[in-house]
Amino acid sequence: MLALYLDETLALKELPVPELQVGEVLIRVRLAGICRTDLEVLKGYHGFQGIPGHEFLGEVAGPADSPWLGRRVVGDINIGCGACPECLGGLAHHCRNRQVIGLKGRNGGFAQYLALPGANLHEVPPEIADDAAVFTEPLAAALQVLDAAPISPDSRALVVGDGSLGLLTSWVLALHGAQVHLVGHYPEHLQLARAYGVVTWLEEDFSEQDFAVAVEASGSPGGLDLALSRVRPRGTVVLKSTYQGRYDLDPTTLVVPEVRLAGCRCGPFDAALRLLRRGWIDPRPLIQARFPLSRGIEALDYARQRGVLKVLLECGDLAGA
Amino acid sequence: MLALYLDETLALKELPVPELQVGEVLIRVRLAGICRTDLEVLKGYHGFQGIPGHEFLGEVAGPADSPWLGRRVVGDINIGCGACPECLGGLAHHCRNRQVIGLKGRNGGFAQYLALPGANLHEVPPEIADDAAVFTEPLAAALQVLDAAPISPDSRALVVGDGSLGLLTSWVLALHGAQVHLVGHYPEHLQLARAYGVVTWLEEDFSEQDFAVAVEASGSPGGLDLALSRVRPRGTVVLKSTYQGRYDLDPTTLVVPEVRLAGCRCGPFDAALRLLRRGWIDPRPLIQARFPLSRGIEALDYARQRGVLKVLLECGDLAGA
Repeated sequence: MLALYLDETLALKELPVPELQVGEVLIRVRLAGICRTDLEVLKGYHGFQGIPGHEFLGEVAGPADSPWLGRRVVGDINIGCGACPECLGGLAHHCRNRQVIGLKGRNGGFAQYLALPGANLHEVPPEIADDAAVFTEPLAAALQVLDAAPISPDSRALVVGDGSLGLLTSWVLALHGAQVHLVGHYPEHLQLARAYGVVTWLEEDFSEQDFAVAVEASGSPGGLDLALSRVRPRGTVVLKSTYQGRYDLDPTTLVVPEVRLAGCRCGPFDAALRLLRRGWIDPRPLIQARFPLSRGIEALDYARQRGVLKVLLECGDLAGA
Repeated sequence: MLALYLDETLALKELPVPELQVGEVLIRVRLAGICRTDLEVLKGYHGFQGIPGHEFLGEVAGPADSPWLGRRVVGDINIGCGACPECLGGLAHHCRNRQVIGLKGRNGGFAQYLALPGANLHEVPPEIADDAAVFTEPLAAALQVLDAAPISPDSRALVVGDGSLGLLTSWVLALHGAQVHLVGHYPEHLQLARAYGVVTWLEEDFSEQDFAVAVEASGSPGGLDLALSRVRPRGTVVLKSTYQGRYDLDPTTLVVPEVRLAGCRCGPFDAALRLLRRGWIDPRPLIQARFPLSRGIEALDYARQRGVLKVLLECGDLAGA
């Protein structure tokens, strides 16, 4: 099969179709999304070696006796050991021995085929088009903000960052009922938020204060500065995006106003699929380019440019697939 | 009246008894406690000028028609403006225009007399001795940890720091039902925690992991390092103490395990008085020295030494008081 493979460098390779372990299914990948984390993986920040990619949509191609066979699926990216206190306590996402597809110890979705435990699969309802369903993972991650912070539907919420994650987060908060403000740099991105009733600001024009919740989704220390400076006393700042490097924290900015800084990572796939199925969130305007997997290197170069939203890899329509 | 007064330096001075504004009462201070924050104030870190001190116990000495006259009281240290959204929303502690006695814009308790709005007062029940009641403010601050973090009585909680605040916090968590571990440096301090069933550790021997809640009460960046390294995924680190300087935060330590870092400051006086009244917490073993106010400079020098717990100023038994 064709796959992008990261070793010392990233290269397009012809690799064997994955062999299945007990409980696993083989997924023929149709679409994969490129996320900023993937670009960090390619820089070597995560120490990952293998096939990158953790946003995918595919159909189950094996084994022949699988009840999943032929079904259209997305999949949770964390694979817990199943035996540790976290796994047994329902926190497999936080298993210390977990694998994460395309990120940690396990091949991801920038390939024609992917192996995944059946337990990780979520069937995609027929109402959801392929190119919407491929956003299930990042939409789930955005929904996790509702878990990380106590957000009253009556509250004012700030999202910092107008990339894909910031936009998805602003939409999720708007659907929750909150009065949402989004701060960013790209007028054409902010426009996508206004379609959901979000109040948008170019950063240089932004002077609003006293948000109950402020979500840092820009992936920059400056974004966290902004979120911390605009949250109200006893409010919550959600740290939604990771970035390499450190943040120079003044502890008094948390202690004196009793602010919470909450880390937030992966989220609930089922909830994301419910929102996509109803059409309450249509992520397709985030798509800025589609490349066949055979042009994957070029796709990643394209995605790396400033201000580019989602880039998709089409993995299923290749000769010999 | 006699008072310690911080200008460019700290000096013992004879000052006029405070003049009362509308709604204020005059308190004859009996005892005042020295807190590490006071020592930071004396270094000029808070830009405060006036009489320091925010832990006190006294009796109301005026005005003559006050319903509080003659009653033994402690007092909330924050004085909100009464008109801003925070004050009107029940968050006067977080009023942006607030005064804080001994810390911000208002004289404190290292004096024979103190003026405070009647609304700030809490009567001390007769069951509570003076030298226990003077701990109401720091005990309230410790209780605020229960507000900052969701702590199940069934959970394991870590407290980092065996100073007064760390010990009070370990006791509060023990009364809450949690299995509490305290890490510190002073065997004689740790002994005081064991009296409440707290499991204690010298830092060099400490290897426990996976705490649902970890409270940093040491006032050092190393304490926050330790708390963050020992909290379990989706747990909460409570930042209870402030310190000057910055903390070099790795955002991934919050995002990947979805940990919350919660700032926590002042707490509920009524709850503290309830625990003191029942004798469920007896803070008096924390007292390491008592000095008359006239020897206040010496008392602060004493309190500044490493490993010293609470030092009290006796303000009420002075010639001419």
